[in-house]
Amino acid sequence: MSDVLQQLAEVLEERKGADPDSSYVAKLYAKGLDAILKKIGEEATETVMAAKDGVAEKIVYEMADLWFHSMVLLAQQGLGPDDVLRELQRRFGLSGLEEKANRSR
Amino acid sequence: MSDVLQQLAEVLEERKGADPDSSYVAKLYAKGLDAILKKIGEEATETVMAAKDGVAEKIVYEMADLWFHSMVLLAQQGLGPDDVLRELQRRFGLSGLEEKANRSR
Amino acid sequence: MSDVLQQLAEVLEERKGADPDSSYVAKLYAKGLDAILKKIGEEATETVMAAKDGVAEKIVYEMADLWFHSMVLLAQQGLGPDDVLRELQRRFGLSGLEEKANRSR
Amino acid sequence: MSDVLQQLAEVLEERKGADPDSSYVAKLYAKGLDAILKKIGEEATETVMAAKDGVAEKIVYEMADLWFHSMVLLAQQGLGPDDVLRELQRRFGLSGLEEKANRSR
Repeated sequence: MSDVLQQLAEVLEERKGADPDSSYVAKLYAKGLDAILKKIGEEATETVMAAKDGVAEKIVYEMADLWFHSMVLLAQQGLGPDDVLRELQRRFGLSGLEEKANRSR
Repeated sequence: MSDVLQQLAEVLEERKGADPDSSYVAKLYAKGLDAILKKIGEEATETVMAAKDGVAEKIVYEMADLWFHSMVLLAQQGLGPDDVLRELQRRFGLSGLEEKANRSR
Repeated sequence: MSDVLQQLAEVLEERKGADPDSSYVAKLYAKGLDAILKKIGEEATETVMAAKDGVAEKIVYEMADLWFHSMVLLAQQGLGPDDVLRELQRRFGLSGLEEKANRSR
Repeated sequence: MSDVLQQLAEVLEERKGADPDSSYVAKLYAKGLDAILKKIGEEATETVMAAKDGVAEKIVYEMADLWFHSMVLLAQQGLGPDDVLRELQRRFGLSGLEEKANRSR
């Protein structure tokens, strides 16, 4: 399960040169940054609504949408999931995680 | 890098019974669902602002915040990152990813 | 200028029984609460992006969208702009506005 | 009720030169645009959560927060509520409101 983000990043990278009509992602790239950011705001709101409904399937579905569009933003900016995971690892470390989290906030 | 989310999920699970004063996460659990969701809305907005500024470090930092609070929501709901990654894998598969993405939207 | 919200509220009220295909608002009512809330999240994000761009016309345009969908939510919930304006008046009063604002937060 | 926004705009204007420690609004101005936008994202999320709870008092309270911070953004940008109300009036007119709304979207 753990390399799904990396595999997804590779696909998102490949799609960068594709015809906008060839896929949803290629179309998003073509529309540009604002279209991607609009989706992030939208999917965050839908995640919040799904959680208020308390339906696990909906939460997972909307969060997958949110993470997916996060990945599209990273790709569009020349970044990748490892940049974010490295930041999380830095904050939480392999040991003393919560202590660090506590101090840093 | 790929098991950072799983390691983080384990820490978030451990913290569930902790004293609310012992850590940031324990306090968030104690405040409850609305406090977690408020953070998701907030961090999504900050991710959008960081991307409009176009500063890579800020984008990574804010997205780490967004993913972190996503993970707290999953933990609080008895879910985990694998549920979301499985949904992404289902949508995109190991092969024919974009084609599926295209069809499903 | 000051009674635009009240006039808009009246139109939104009238549309409640209308055929979903007859107007944008009638369609939103028919889709229900989640569709309205999704628009509020979306328009808030677009207002934030317009402000980051610093273009006055875009800010005004997106905020009109945000206030408009706020008004649709109020109408759908049997509320109106006067309920919100009364709350703002209560908080800020006709005199000593800032002092109250200061105390209440 | 209808001139509450205009009165509030006047107070927000007055506060522009005030000591950041003198009021909540003066502090927000001093923190700058990003702090104001963060509040707009936050209050939009809280409005969505209040509406999912279906409690009228909470919806009115959170929407007052959302409109209030919208007004702070307008003031900080040298704009005012009349700019937004004029845009709403332009879209919806005094007659033929829905028809125009329908065409313009």
